[in-house]
Parts: sequence; structure tokens; C-alpha cells
Amino acid sequence: MNTKLPPRTVERLSKYRRLLDKYKDLEEAHIYSHKLAALLNLTPEQVRRDLMLIGLTGNHRKGYNIKALIGQIGTTIDRQEGHRVALVGIGNLGKAVLGFIRKANTKMDIVAAFDIDRNKVNTQVAGVACYDIGAAAQIISREQIRIAILTVPPEAAVNTATLLLESGIRGILNFTSVHLDVPPGIYLKDYDIITSLEEIGFFIMD
Amino acid sequence: MNTKLPPRTVERLSKYRRLLDKYKDLEEAHIYSHKLAALLNLTPEQVRRDLMLIGLTGNHRKGYNIKALIGQIGTTIDRQEGHRVALVGIGNLGKAVLGFIRKANTKMDIVAAFDIDRNKVNTQVAGVACYDIGAAAQIISREQIRIAILTVPPEAAVNTATLLLESGIRGILNFTSVHLDVPPGIYLKDYDIITSLEEIGFFIMD
Repeated sequence: MNTKLPPRTVERLSKYRRLLDKYKDLEEAHIYSHKLAALLNLTPEQVRRDLMLIGLTGNHRKGYNIKALIGQIGTTIDRQEGHRVALVGIGNLGKAVLGFIRKANTKMDIVAAFDIDRNKVNTQVAGVACYDIGAAAQIISREQIRIAILTVPPEAAVNTATLLLESGIRGILNFTSVHLDVPPGIYLKDYDIITSLEEIGFFIMD
Repeated sequence: MNTKLPPRTVERLSKYRRLLDKYKDLEEAHIYSHKLAALLNLTPEQVRRDLMLIGLTGNHRKGYNIKALIGQIGTTIDRQEGHRVALVGIGNLGKAVLGFIRKANTKMDIVAAFDIDRNKVNTQVAGVACYDIGAAAQIISREQIRIAILTVPPEAAVNTATLLLESGIRGILNFTSVHLDVPPGIYLKDYDIITSLEEIGFFIMD
């Protein structure tokens, strides 16, 4: 494990693995860096540099061994025992994200959901136990949860994030589009739909 | 309009604006580049460079005029008449994204939704007309839609994207986590929840 890898490298390693996942049962399958690069709109140099950082070099005649590549990316970026994740805010977006993750092949395990709605608290949502947000500190500690997905309404974003961080959460995937100020040592990733659309809009203008 | 701006710059300009949007009704309000930088975990140099690219320089004593900044970002990245957007795939994720965008203050206007489910076709979803995906070419042309948000199931992703591009779509926001191969001139933006979670997981490991 090398926490010195830049965030963009980790992001790309995760993407290489997801792209190659469908080949994981093959023996001796190889892929060239330029093929992998083309699939992700990267340069072959970028791909080779990323893989070099995790100790992989390609074979000149065949490229990279896919099985070894998937294995080495896993060794580098996965936590052996997976990650225990909480989903906070079980509205439409929360439910959609939950369904999406549970269908994906990932070591991310959603083990608790939180909401303030009495109709949701103490039920199961897609197989996940839903708790009152007031119990967050207790459940997060008991379940050893360190990552939270924040899908609460914007007006609740800041207070909920503060509560989560006080409860021991160390990484937040923020869907609220509200700016969160987090202390050093906390890893925050914003997922801003509007920003993405505006970027697309800009680049397709004549 | 300057399409020579790098994607990351456009993304940051969109973020500056969203962050400062709450101040837009104030007169004479200013902000320093280092304050704006701190809010987004950027360096002040980065902020100044981005704003310089769109012709803005800060005042040494007061920083940047927020009203002018918001206005200039709009002039640079917005299309005057907004963008007409289609939502393709009205499952949980599609509905959540639709609700999210309709609540946001943006020039992105979702004017049509598509699905294959007969129970959804020819209804309104959150005020948006829903059509059969088979009518995509006709509706996209008639409604002058150029951006599509793809929230179909993974197994439908590639075929649906192909159909959309044949129908005149030029930008896709892809939520499916399936890799899409798009021709030059098409702007594709992937929104990959699992990759984001894996990145967070990596950086919070001890």
C-alpha cells in the first residue's frame, strides 16, 4: 500500500480494473497500453506511468498480463477486508445509489443507512438496516464504518457532515452539491451533477 | 466563448460560480483568491490563473468583485439560450437525477425523458414528458436536444448511446459505469460512483 499515489492515479487504476474486469477469468490474456489508453481517452504514456507506479511493466510483444494487472491494482488500492460504508439520506437519490452499489462488483459494503424519517427508521432498505440519524455515533462506532455517502437534502448537508465526522467517518462522497469544509485527514469527494452538465454544455457549443 | 479552455478549468469555473451564487444579490461584494481557493482546496495561484483566462484580475485591496465574476463566468461557459437536455432511463437513478437538476439553479433544461417501459411512456415524470426510446431520433431533432443524461441499466448502455448519437446528441453524461466509445467531437463525461468510492477508500487507509 502506497498512500503517496496521486488521487488521479488511484482513480485511473480503479477505472483500468473496471474496464478489464470482464476478462478476469481468462488465462494468459494480455493487453497493450495503447489499447487500454484508447478505451479511456488517455495517452499510452499515462497508462504506462500509472502501472509503473504500482510495479508493473508490460511485455514488448504482448503488453500487460490482465490477470496480474487486476491483481496488482487490487493489492494496491483495496483494503483486504473491504470497506464498511454508510448511506446517509434515503431519498430517491440515496435509494438509487444504494441499488447501484449493491449490484456492482466492489469491496465497498454498505452496512447501514440513516435517515430522519420515522417511516424509514428501523426498516430495511434494499437489505440494509436503516437507523435514525440520532444514533449515528453509536452505530458508526459499533459497525466500524469509516466512509459515508451523503445524499441528504442540501439544507441538511453541513450539519449532517459535521455529525458524521464527529462520529468517526473519515471519507465522504458528497452528492449534495453543497460545499463542505472538512478538516485535514478527511477525504472528501464531491459528485456534482450540475458542474458536469455545465462542462458538457461548454464543450459542445459551436 | 473560448473553447480553448481546458475541461478542468471549465469545471472549476462552474464550481466558483455555484459557491458564490448565494452572494449574487449583493452589491460591491468582493472575495480574495485565497479565500475562494481555500473553500475548494485549490491554491490561490490556480484560482487567479483560471480567472485570468476569462479576463478577470482581482483588486489588490479587495479581491474579485463577486457580481462581475459570476457574470463573466456565465458569459464564458453558458449558452445564452440554455441547453436542452434529455434524460434517458427513468429508473430510480434517473428520477433522482431529474429531481436534483430541476431544483438547481442552472441553464440546463430537461425537456424530454425516454424509457422502454410502457407504463412510463406518454406520461409526465416530474413535469417532463416521457417518450418511447424508439421515438428518440424524432423527438431529439424536433426539440433540438443536444445533451443526454444516460441512466439506463448497464446492459442497455452501449446500444442506447449509439442510438442517441445517431439522433444528434453531442454530449453525454454517463451514469452507467459502462465504458462508452464515442467518436471525436462528442463530449462524454463519466460519473462513476464505484471509482469515487474506491478512491476515498484508498486515501483513508492507514
